[in-house]
Amino acid sequence: MSRFAMIAFDADDTLWHNERLYVAAQATFRDLLAHYHSPEWIDERLFQTEMRNLQHFGYGIKAFALSMIETAVELTEGRIGGNDIQTLIDAARTMLTADVELLDGVPETLDVLAGSYELMVITKGDLRDQEVKIERSGLARYFRHVEIVSDKHRANYETLLRRHAIAPEQFLMVGNSLRSDILPVLELGAHAVYIPHHLTWAHEAGTAPEAHPGYYELAHMGELPALLARLEG
Amino acid sequence: MSRFAMIAFDADDTLWHNERLYVAAQATFRDLLAHYHSPEWIDERLFQTEMRNLQHFGYGIKAFALSMIETAVELTEGRIGGNDIQTLIDAARTMLTADVELLDGVPETLDVLAGSYELMVITKGDLRDQEVKIERSGLARYFRHVEIVSDKHRANYETLLRRHAIAPEQFLMVGNSLRSDILPVLELGAHAVYIPHHLTWAHEAGTAPEAHPGYYELAHMGELPALLARLEG
Repeated sequence: MSRFAMIAFDADDTLWHNERLYVAAQATFRDLLAHYHSPEWIDERLFQTEMRNLQHFGYGIKAFALSMIETAVELTEGRIGGNDIQTLIDAARTMLTADVELLDGVPETLDVLAGSYELMVITKGDLRDQEVKIERSGLARYFRHVEIVSDKHRANYETLLRRHAIAPEQFLMVGNSLRSDILPVLELGAHAVYIPHHLTWAHEAGTAPEAHPGYYELAHMGELPALLARLEG
Repeated sequence: MSRFAMIAFDADDTLWHNERLYVAAQATFRDLLAHYHSPEWIDERLFQTEMRNLQHFGYGIKAFALSMIETAVELTEGRIGGNDIQTLIDAARTMLTADVELLDGVPETLDVLAGSYELMVITKGDLRDQEVKIERSGLARYFRHVEIVSDKHRANYETLLRRHAIAPEQFLMVGNSLRSDILPVLELGAHAVYIPHHLTWAHEAGTAPEAHPGYYELAHMGELPALLARLEG
């Protein structure tokens, strides 16, 4: 019998590329405001707006678009033009309709693991956007459950484990965000595999735990089956 | 033993007032554009934008805000000012932070029914916004399950019934939208109680079924216990 009753995966930048869509939109945003401010100040103010709006707007592309628009109005003291606003809305629509591009090794790894484990996705963001991406990814068949949550605090994981009747020690989470995928899961006494992605939003940063018994770091998704074999062995 | 394994409630304008927040924001929107166009044309164009954006933006306040902003840019041919854009974002923030005002008779009815039935909420819209409203409503304790979905088509209900292992004939849905709460549920062979709300978004309209065996219409939530007593009897 397996040691893990459920292996859960973050989606954005764990299964497929995502942050680069934000990076591209933010480059457009920076260009629009280049006559007004330095790139560094534009980035800083956008991040401040996002953090201020997080409690009301939540995560995801629509919240990001509203924060870009609001920051543009603030940074231009209301002089931003309607066509530039339209450019920002179009950038959001481009993000929402972008092709889903899987990270290397993802389908192969899921194909191996799905034979031995129950797999789940746990992702945050806009409900519809995440559903569409799971469908477009072609990965839906590997997952017994897809959970789209408004945030990934310890309490959100507790609720999910209770709902699926899984003990923390039988749960393993895989993701690229220390803040959202790793630290709250370890706090619960579950296991977490951190696979860093070269693009990660500043908000998702955290400090990797040192010598925590349930913590593992991998360079690549393709290394996951070997890690699991070792843990089971 | 009860005839119904689960009674599910829509949330917006079934448990608490919601559409009036949209009506108020739309009045602000109409005022901003009053120098450019007639109120009727402004309303029509906003509705068109919302329908066009629905597949990408989904339901909820953030999508509504983006559609208002986009329509304002279009209807002013880009001449909308940054301060007016800020007014629209502020209108969205006002909606997201509004007090939850329960409809008459809701807590009393839930209190009665929770003694005999498993109750569930099935609502669509922004994940975080709906979660916050359920928490603020003070009604969370009555519901065994809260399901926030991206849409309420027949397939969404099928997925929910399967997940909770409920046969359609043991399921009853209560709501104010013929399109979202009633018709897809009846199609599945389940039961549906339509409680019209005097404010309902045009998109949610539908034709009430005639003489459908699982269909009931009530004027008021307070009439629900008596209807259920009759159905059980």
